[in-house]
Amino acid sequence: MNLPSVSSKPVAWIAGVGASAGLGAAVARRFAKEGFAVALTGRTASRVEALADEIRAAGGDAYAFPGDVADETSIKRIAARVSEIGALHAAVFNAASGIRAPSLDLTAVQFEDALRVNVIGGFVFGQAALRALLDNGRDAEASHGLGTLLFTGATAALRGRPPFAAFAAAKAALRSLSQSFAREFGPRGIHVAHVVIDGGIDGERLRQGAPQRVEQAGADGLLLPDAIAETYWQLHMQHRSAWTQEADLRPYRESF
Amino acid sequence: MNLPSVSSKPVAWIAGVGASAGLGAAVARRFAKEGFAVALTGRTASRVEALADEIRAAGGDAYAFPGDVADETSIKRIAARVSEIGALHAAVFNAASGIRAPSLDLTAVQFEDALRVNVIGGFVFGQAALRALLDNGRDAEASHGLGTLLFTGATAALRGRPPFAAFAAAKAALRSLSQSFAREFGPRGIHVAHVVIDGGIDGERLRQGAPQRVEQAGADGLLLPDAIAETYWQLHMQHRSAWTQEADLRPYRESF
Amino acid sequence: MNLPSVSSKPVAWIAGVGASAGLGAAVARRFAKEGFAVALTGRTASRVEALADEIRAAGGDAYAFPGDVADETSIKRIAARVSEIGALHAAVFNAASGIRAPSLDLTAVQFEDALRVNVIGGFVFGQAALRALLDNGRDAEASHGLGTLLFTGATAALRGRPPFAAFAAAKAALRSLSQSFAREFGPRGIHVAHVVIDGGIDGERLRQGAPQRVEQAGADGLLLPDAIAETYWQLHMQHRSAWTQEADLRPYRESF
Amino acid sequence: MNLPSVSSKPVAWIAGVGASAGLGAAVARRFAKEGFAVALTGRTASRVEALADEIRAAGGDAYAFPGDVADETSIKRIAARVSEIGALHAAVFNAASGIRAPSLDLTAVQFEDALRVNVIGGFVFGQAALRALLDNGRDAEASHGLGTLLFTGATAALRGRPPFAAFAAAKAALRSLSQSFAREFGPRGIHVAHVVIDGGIDGERLRQGAPQRVEQAGADGLLLPDAIAETYWQLHMQHRSAWTQEADLRPYRESF
Repeated sequence: MNLPSVSSKPVAWIAGVGASAGLGAAVARRFAKEGFAVALTGRTASRVEALADEIRAAGGDAYAFPGDVADETSIKRIAARVSEIGALHAAVFNAASGIRAPSLDLTAVQFEDALRVNVIGGFVFGQAALRALLDNGRDAEASHGLGTLLFTGATAALRGRPPFAAFAAAKAALRSLSQSFAREFGPRGIHVAHVVIDGGIDGERLRQGAPQRVEQAGADGLLLPDAIAETYWQLHMQHRSAWTQEADLRPYRESF
Repeated sequence: MNLPSVSSKPVAWIAGVGASAGLGAAVARRFAKEGFAVALTGRTASRVEALADEIRAAGGDAYAFPGDVADETSIKRIAARVSEIGALHAAVFNAASGIRAPSLDLTAVQFEDALRVNVIGGFVFGQAALRALLDNGRDAEASHGLGTLLFTGATAALRGRPPFAAFAAAKAALRSLSQSFAREFGPRGIHVAHVVIDGGIDGERLRQGAPQRVEQAGADGLLLPDAIAETYWQLHMQHRSAWTQEADLRPYRESF
Repeated sequence: MNLPSVSSKPVAWIAGVGASAGLGAAVARRFAKEGFAVALTGRTASRVEALADEIRAAGGDAYAFPGDVADETSIKRIAARVSEIGALHAAVFNAASGIRAPSLDLTAVQFEDALRVNVIGGFVFGQAALRALLDNGRDAEASHGLGTLLFTGATAALRGRPPFAAFAAAKAALRSLSQSFAREFGPRGIHVAHVVIDGGIDGERLRQGAPQRVEQAGADGLLLPDAIAETYWQLHMQHRSAWTQEADLRPYRESF
Repeated sequence: MNLPSVSSKPVAWIAGVGASAGLGAAVARRFAKEGFAVALTGRTASRVEALADEIRAAGGDAYAFPGDVADETSIKRIAARVSEIGALHAAVFNAASGIRAPSLDLTAVQFEDALRVNVIGGFVFGQAALRALLDNGRDAEASHGLGTLLFTGATAALRGRPPFAAFAAAKAALRSLSQSFAREFGPRGIHVAHVVIDGGIDGERLRQGAPQRVEQAGADGLLLPDAIAETYWQLHMQHRSAWTQEADLRPYRESF
């Protein structure tokens, strides 16, 4: 911990970085724009590296640490490398995996896999981030606290519904985990928040997988990743006398 | 499925049978008293068998099927044997496993284990029970529907809180799963309900592990297993025009 | 309080008695069938009296006390007469008033009226019932406690939604009130519960006002008043070691 | 509507303006700082005027419109005057009234009064604000929509609890109302949000009424009005593709 850091910038660690047009990428760009060095983790190395290249080309600091959020060994190894960059101020868990199927068609393996990525990933990443935040050398008594741990949630977290039984159960567990972390680490100066994304995100996945849905949504009818990232940034900037633990986000015309 | 059944009685399958003074045992006795043949599943064979013996000695029909609810192979095998007894009318998932620890002291293995028993167990048992209920030969159009699938929940399902981060996440996921099942199988005639147990259950675990708590609780200050079992029975008896999906249960003097 | 009571039977006081085919009437019949003397309150004297006559003709004890639940003077007067019948063991608040309109078409008077019947009514009736229950001479330490106060709620209590802004706000307030009462009077031996009715009730209002909806619902697709009343009775019968504060009720095929 | 406006600035209308150190004042200053003309409504004319003077002295535009939020005539009259200032872009309902008492000590008048200020006030002010927002001449299809209507909520909205039965019921109703408005007017371009304030606000009321509580809370242990106001401003600035309907705010060390 006492080795000279690579960067004097504060560090943001984003897990669940995928497509360039996705939420993870937007969050990374938002923090980079504010002068953070961003550490990027995602399953697909080529995507993580492409985003790091892009951010560096724009003058930012970015580090590609591909890996699986649910693999504790891998995440601990990455956490060590993140700490070498500088002091972690913000961590964002954005990994998600869902499967759509009637409940009796789901295999136990599929069900477990949803839990593994969404919840065990959240736990493993969350623990690593919390440890780094507790150890970041900031003054816990300052108005910003030690930093921020954000979880990307989903409306499915609020109610189980077919054909999303596995995804909903996993997201409900992740939401619960974010509450436990918030209650335990808030008083120690770490802002833990859970953001309920309600609606489709306007990104590669929907544009390729459900182009009609994109069209029907109309202008701003899907969540723009940059708009979500803005709220993540504002959550990070909140004064510790008034922290948000949970906020929902949805397009203005989304039915709910 | 067309083999002659061992019993002409309706069958109730109870998973999570443990101590003789516990909730699983109380539920089994309640259904046996109403003329059900009860199939009993729990991790500890000696306990499952002791309860089956006790119920038979009292004139009831009981079958011991020890096993691990999260082991899909084992549960499928047991489900096949349950179906040989007779037509399944009711299934109760009562297995639970919690660990109490500060969140950074939890290992990933402990966290996964909480998910395994509480949620994956709920999924594996739930699927097996749903399949048997769909196949029980009753008239789905009758006022009772095909039967009942009950999940024992906990207040922890409603909010994550240290030192119960793992247990709470798992119970939140189980609650979500019960909702998905209810929404999918209610219209097909299966009553799926989740009971939020809020408070300590007056049983072997607390009497041995926390005798002071038992004493402080005073008369009826802990949930009596027979009182919980009565509500489970009443849920089973509800007319399909007015089914409960969720009910909480707590002692009259419990703070909440 | 020390005058000789008219009846040696326990008393149930039902407010919100309307149509003979409605929920209030079904609850009254259910308690009368169990040997309760029932005190009936509703806005329309002729309906209240017709139900009292019907119950008496069937061999039960019934008393007609027409009145407005939100009129404190009237309710206090009725409460005094109820106490003359005998010891109050159960009270049910079933009055409701809703208006369906776009939010900008609602007048302040209409909005206030929804609050008046649903919430102020719940408060005024609830206070009167709580006082009578506290004073009913039963042993608060017995397993049944002093008695039961039940509130009929609605899914609208759980989320505001046009065109039901006034009704939803009122029902949300009533639900909150039931929680406050439960937390305050549970430890004193009174079981306060809120039942979330989710779906249409099969009664005069829907059969006359929305016959197509009744037809589309199909068999048991609307809540049968007798089925709801059965759950109310079972809530009253719960042992004080395991009281329900909230339960939902919906038809098996209701979407939720 | 076609008269020349007094101000070319966008207008924010804040109701529930009280003490200079309170939340209403902080919100007003925040919007004034961003170039809004602020219209100020509160029950005590001297306080409303003092804040308007202060904001004008600092170079801002401020207008004092004292009045009672629950008085429809008064609010309609004020709304007409607000519209003369310029185009309404933001409205904040911050009025609140609570009483602390055991539930049986509350009079019906006290209970109604809590509903009147918190809920009927929210309805009357909300309607007036919605009408002005719909009529503000902005392009509903632009990314900012027509504007924002914010409600100050409280944790009491989430659960009823003595000795706050009246306040909790009223705040639960207000929360429901904010949801109805959001669902109805979001698709028409108005961002309606409810902020759950969880904890004490560091202001005149607590500093005078509960100085020990202020001391015990420690640094940033109470919500700073400026910190809350910052979140209100950020909510106003959200892009319509990702609007928050509800966010909670609490001090980092608040137990919840």
